[in-house]
Amino acid sequence: MVCAILCLASAHASVLSAPAEPPLTPENINPRLVAAEYAVRGRLLDRAKELESVGRRTVKCNIGNPQALGQRPLSWVRQVLSLVLNADLLEAAEAAACGSSDGEALRALFPPDAVARARVYVDAISSAGAYSDSQGVLCVREEVAHFLRERDGCGSEARDVFLTDGASAGVRALLQALLGQPGVDAILAPSPVYPLYSALSTLLDGGAALYPLTEDAAGTWGIRVSNLEASLQLARARGSNVRALVVINPGNPTGQCMSAEEVAAVLEFAAREGLVLLADEVYQANVYNGGPARTGKRRNDFHSFRRALALLRQTKPQLAARAQLVSMHSTSKGFYGECGLRGGFFALDGNWDDGVRSQLVKLASICLCSNVVGQLAMGLVVSPPRPGMPSHDTFAAERGAILESLRARADTLAAALDALPGVTCAPAEGALYLFPRIALPPAAVAAAREAGVAPDELYAMRLLDATGLVVVPGSGFGQPDPEAYHVRTTFLPPADQLEQVTSAIAAFHRSFVDEFATPAAAAATA
Amino acid sequence: MVCAILCLASAHASVLSAPAEPPLTPENINPRLVAAEYAVRGRLLDRAKELESVGRRTVKCNIGNPQALGQRPLSWVRQVLSLVLNADLLEAAEAAACGSSDGEALRALFPPDAVARARVYVDAISSAGAYSDSQGVLCVREEVAHFLRERDGCGSEARDVFLTDGASAGVRALLQALLGQPGVDAILAPSPVYPLYSALSTLLDGGAALYPLTEDAAGTWGIRVSNLEASLQLARARGSNVRALVVINPGNPTGQCMSAEEVAAVLEFAAREGLVLLADEVYQANVYNGGPARTGKRRNDFHSFRRALALLRQTKPQLAARAQLVSMHSTSKGFYGECGLRGGFFALDGNWDDGVRSQLVKLASICLCSNVVGQLAMGLVVSPPRPGMPSHDTFAAERGAILESLRARADTLAAALDALPGVTCAPAEGALYLFPRIALPPAAVAAAREAGVAPDELYAMRLLDATGLVVVPGSGFGQPDPEAYHVRTTFLPPADQLEQVTSAIAAFHRSFVDEFATPAAAAATA
Repeated sequence: MVCAILCLASAHASVLSAPAEPPLTPENINPRLVAAEYAVRGRLLDRAKELESVGRRTVKCNIGNPQALGQRPLSWVRQVLSLVLNADLLEAAEAAACGSSDGEALRALFPPDAVARARVYVDAISSAGAYSDSQGVLCVREEVAHFLRERDGCGSEARDVFLTDGASAGVRALLQALLGQPGVDAILAPSPVYPLYSALSTLLDGGAALYPLTEDAAGTWGIRVSNLEASLQLARARGSNVRALVVINPGNPTGQCMSAEEVAAVLEFAAREGLVLLADEVYQANVYNGGPARTGKRRNDFHSFRRALALLRQTKPQLAARAQLVSMHSTSKGFYGECGLRGGFFALDGNWDDGVRSQLVKLASICLCSNVVGQLAMGLVVSPPRPGMPSHDTFAAERGAILESLRARADTLAAALDALPGVTCAPAEGALYLFPRIALPPAAVAAAREAGVAPDELYAMRLLDATGLVVVPGSGFGQPDPEAYHVRTTFLPPADQLEQVTSAIAAFHRSFVDEFATPAAAAATA
Repeated sequence: MVCAILCLASAHASVLSAPAEPPLTPENINPRLVAAEYAVRGRLLDRAKELESVGRRTVKCNIGNPQALGQRPLSWVRQVLSLVLNADLLEAAEAAACGSSDGEALRALFPPDAVARARVYVDAISSAGAYSDSQGVLCVREEVAHFLRERDGCGSEARDVFLTDGASAGVRALLQALLGQPGVDAILAPSPVYPLYSALSTLLDGGAALYPLTEDAAGTWGIRVSNLEASLQLARARGSNVRALVVINPGNPTGQCMSAEEVAAVLEFAAREGLVLLADEVYQANVYNGGPARTGKRRNDFHSFRRALALLRQTKPQLAARAQLVSMHSTSKGFYGECGLRGGFFALDGNWDDGVRSQLVKLASICLCSNVVGQLAMGLVVSPPRPGMPSHDTFAAERGAILESLRARADTLAAALDALPGVTCAPAEGALYLFPRIALPPAAVAAAREAGVAPDELYAMRLLDATGLVVVPGSGFGQPDPEAYHVRTTFLPPADQLEQVTSAIAAFHRSFVDEFATPAAAAATA
């Protein structure tokens, strides 16, 4: 009791002396959070919201979010999920499938294989409202393992698969496991890089050593092992303990699709140098190899790192024995485009100790499990209807139409951008983005510097104000050549709006170039 | 080219010298991950999986996961979500609601207000497959703000609400923002504590200063401001920069429900001491105030911290002006029990700077958004059917049956546990758990020490082996009195299994006590 009184007295004293400001302020918030940058949803998006609030229409090409721009989800995925979520509906659909007289409407809505798959899931999980195993629903992890075996021709087991809230949450978990020594441990990541990697490294007090991707005269990007090697040595010389190599294939924001030889060479590099290889392959189903690139090369197919590791085991077993590969995938991209459901996985391949695996399981368990609907969506993406199943023809038609439309829109937009004066835009090999290089007038660069913004951000902000199009400045991804300016844009606007979009960009670009044609004009504007 | 050759040469050299072990090992993984403990899904669950793998039946009372133990989801929530996920189904249900002749089956499955709510959501989000605003779907944040205004009688706006993947992800984000100085910044959290808080603090290299909750002779837990004060002063004396106070009300694992006076006193303490108050109120709908506790006190209603802040603004405006309150909620508990959907929110109240808010938005944006189905589930939980709406009677009946059943099961199990020799178990005031205190025989304590496990873990492991029941040892939550042993168990087994569960516990407990009745017997067993 004496203690309690003393404590209250001291508390009273601190009222009088306490500062009037609140506990958490922009000045004392975690400085690593302040330092983290994520341009995909940065200032441009804030400005877009402002414009929308005064009634302006905007088109969000800043983010690969197909269903926000009108892409319809695959019927197969949604039929199964809606049945899983509604037990009464599932029972009614099962009765209808058995021919109940009033089941016409339900038979039309739910093919029997969708009903059957929903029943398999419900029997496995009890309810989508129950926490799953922290690592993910077992039968979905088995579906993922089966998908990987079929895709890569080499073994995978459910114990190697972790289901995550989109691929992003998997990256967060992996970096949390890898970046243990503040300011020392680092990842080796591409430049330009999808800013998830740089932002998380900053947040976790890890370093990000960047290896430059290469851009050729035609605007096509590539990866060179010599650049990886040089960047690694430089980082090591500076005292970094580089623990992992990030490779995004197909590339984001750069859209390149690596050849089988490049994949093999990068894998060997990582194994040789003792780096965990984080293979971000979320765009694996977005590959546009239907035609020759302008450089005359045939565009590449997707080649997985797991497949390369299987080959390496045959050719260089000792090197392969040291490899640790993490292959990532997601429901968000491809022709399924289920971003909002937040489904994803990472799969371990190579030489993983059970002790590491159990630490990753524990990490997943702290926040209990990833969302179960997203987990099931991942299962549906990796095990779609097979030929001969009732849903197959609809599925195949929807898939074909989406992929063909994406390819056509990519080519149309790339050609339109490439035709603009001072703009170089290669066709997309993969992913959902174009990354045109823009020769900004020196006066525009000077005006941007004067205003304290990156030149490509000035361009993107002006583009937004003039057209309502939201793109991401290349500087938001880091640029290996700080004087080569880019923007990243999706090619996701619907086909019937694409003409309007390309015209608007062209008109804006010409007026921007005109405005900054002379230093005098720029000075007046800035 | 010369550079490339040099780099390859140096790479080749490193092959020869590189160690044979893989890059990431249990020895070099992030040591903070190794140190983090999360007992709710720890060794007991591993053992349960082993037992299941050889065909033994287990009952998971280690985690509040009602739908895994047979609780049916609310029809309202699942009807709307299944319609949102399936555009064809929604259109058919709308046509049926307008009286299409073949719509009988759909009219029976989907009340018109569920169809209407689904349409509102779909119009707002385009598709559940589109990324939402990073902070969450605006119309759901508005529903949450409306719920908070109605619950607490004080203002809240959508801009103060962040939708998260369960409440856990919100806690992770908030601690990431708060714990900026490694080894210095700390939170003040209860002991015993739900291990999410301690595990995340460890992982983020923050400290967790613990304040003891108090347990009375009857096993009822309480919170005392004098204990908060003493623990804070001690932590400060040791050099910690305590940034936030965690309060879990109703308590987890302790089940107490704070009085309005306790809530007000704790809020004043936090404001006075410059601590952000993290109010974990996920069990707010699990309050069992139907009868008197054994101590003769009436069990408390739920009293929110937001309501207390509104009152403090009237009585002590200067103190209230310094308060920063974060109120958390979830779809996982209550009578809805939608754990697997991972819906949740946190809401800011008090003196928050826009700069802090925008850092929190940026943090949310790095992993893009929380899962949209979980967001909508949160909206449905906070804005259920009102009286007079077609779904209301079913909703009210389901809610009433679940809450009454939970209360009855809690009382039955508590009485059965309390009747065991050496076991003290108070009735649950709130939440989903009982936390019986168990006077373990000295020989059992000695045997546990000998085996290198906590005595209550020995008890829980033996309970599992004997009965298949999975509970969590009290030591997994931290114990203010290390010699007072507890286990945490949910009271979620279905009513028709509860008799069997209580008999099995009683038989096990008696045989455990008998076994360790004499030191000689214990020595023989250990």
